[in-house]
Amino acid sequence: MTTQAEKATTLLSLHHAEQPLILVNAWDVASASIVEQAGFPAIATTSAGVANALGYSDGQYLPWAEMEQAIRKIAQAVKIPVTADIEAGFGSGLQELEATIRHVIEAGAVGINLEDKVPGGGEERPLYSVAEQLERIRVVRRTGEKLEVRLVINARTDAYWGKNSSPAEALRKTLERGRAYLDAGADCIFAPGLRIPEHIRAVVEQLRAPVNILGGAGVPSIPELVKLGVKRISLGSGPMRAAMGTLRRICQETATAGTYNTLSDGAVSHAEMNAFFRG
Amino acid sequence: MTTQAEKATTLLSLHHAEQPLILVNAWDVASASIVEQAGFPAIATTSAGVANALGYSDGQYLPWAEMEQAIRKIAQAVKIPVTADIEAGFGSGLQELEATIRHVIEAGAVGINLEDKVPGGGEERPLYSVAEQLERIRVVRRTGEKLEVRLVINARTDAYWGKNSSPAEALRKTLERGRAYLDAGADCIFAPGLRIPEHIRAVVEQLRAPVNILGGAGVPSIPELVKLGVKRISLGSGPMRAAMGTLRRICQETATAGTYNTLSDGAVSHAEMNAFFRG
Repeated sequence: MTTQAEKATTLLSLHHAEQPLILVNAWDVASASIVEQAGFPAIATTSAGVANALGYSDGQYLPWAEMEQAIRKIAQAVKIPVTADIEAGFGSGLQELEATIRHVIEAGAVGINLEDKVPGGGEERPLYSVAEQLERIRVVRRTGEKLEVRLVINARTDAYWGKNSSPAEALRKTLERGRAYLDAGADCIFAPGLRIPEHIRAVVEQLRAPVNILGGAGVPSIPELVKLGVKRISLGSGPMRAAMGTLRRICQETATAGTYNTLSDGAVSHAEMNAFFRG
Repeated sequence: MTTQAEKATTLLSLHHAEQPLILVNAWDVASASIVEQAGFPAIATTSAGVANALGYSDGQYLPWAEMEQAIRKIAQAVKIPVTADIEAGFGSGLQELEATIRHVIEAGAVGINLEDKVPGGGEERPLYSVAEQLERIRVVRRTGEKLEVRLVINARTDAYWGKNSSPAEALRKTLERGRAYLDAGADCIFAPGLRIPEHIRAVVEQLRAPVNILGGAGVPSIPELVKLGVKRISLGSGPMRAAMGTLRRICQETATAGTYNTLSDGAVSHAEMNAFFRG
């Protein structure tokens, strides 16, 4: 029986191993079970995937209780460490953020993604100020310590997804924010949208800490990312949207030819699916 | 604004139209939204898919409250009629069955699948007796009438999935049970495992009522089923398990080549997914 504190230590060590930490993000218990069985050492949730599966847009429209329940179900179902994407923390103030973190730990997760994008902030207030985000990261760290779980903090900056930033400006902001977030207690810096190899190399070398790259079309392959020194690669809502793409193709084939090829080619069998669960 | 009673009428009429009713079963709001957008006229839930997504085996291990919540979320998210797979009714007695049906209607569904397999009955008591199942179907019909929703009852018989039945015996049982279930108020007879063309033709011709065939590998194609007179074709947990197959292939590609082809080929985009939901 591995304790939650041990799982947190394991998750942290996976960021400092020779091999990178590769995360195929899950959005429900079935998907988490498939990823665990495939041999991955940890599960990351996708907030967009969880939200969509439950009927909400990405961007903290999902009530926190539903997100918490999804995290709890996944953490209870798998043996490996779970890190939860909690977007910007589901709370406007620091006390609410602390409550979210308590819930995350009580749900069984040992790591989080915390982003600096202001929910509903639009173009006027796209990101929390650096000072605000540092205080938020410190609250997360302190809350974990109080509960005796050394939470792995994957601090995300949305600098590369800003609409008004040039790549050079995004790189500058990522370096500035990444360095500050690490000083405040973050374990890893996540920069979705960062895909230019020279920029990835610069961020890895200048931050001297684990960097998380979001994999997908147009991003260097995982072997290439590893050569650039990337320690964590995740896929975000990509796996969930690929699964939905398969469903869409099933719809098309069913409505046109009326055959079952997309349905049956490489499907997980009923027996395999149910073997994941005790009852 | 279509009322629930109108949706029930629409769903029933889809069983008696020139074209068959084709159902690509959904297991969460995202999958239901994909199926609705693809132009299908109704949504059927898959009980196995819902259960697996939430961390349970197929076979009524899922607490009813979680199944009800999944049905409610789907019914609230789509405009088209929803028919819910409620296995054997999630209750051992008739009063519990009535409560389940009330919940199903309150959740917004206008049709159900009710099977005659006894949950946990094993080989000793595989199916409810014909008399028991007739009473159960009558309770469903009466409960719908009390709530003024003419629920579409898809009465399932597991005769073809029985371990000790020859195909000839399964056909005999399906005809016997199907006829009795129709007399008790069922609108459609669902015989999963029925795939022999001559048997399908016999069931359609002798029951003189809509028959539901479970499509999939080894089953006649939809055009072939239509020629045999089949009025309803559903895919059960197949679409969900195909989606999980895609996830498994993503895991394999990610862990080996480290490329993103399975992830990105034909995936639903982030913008498309989120456009399904208001917020």
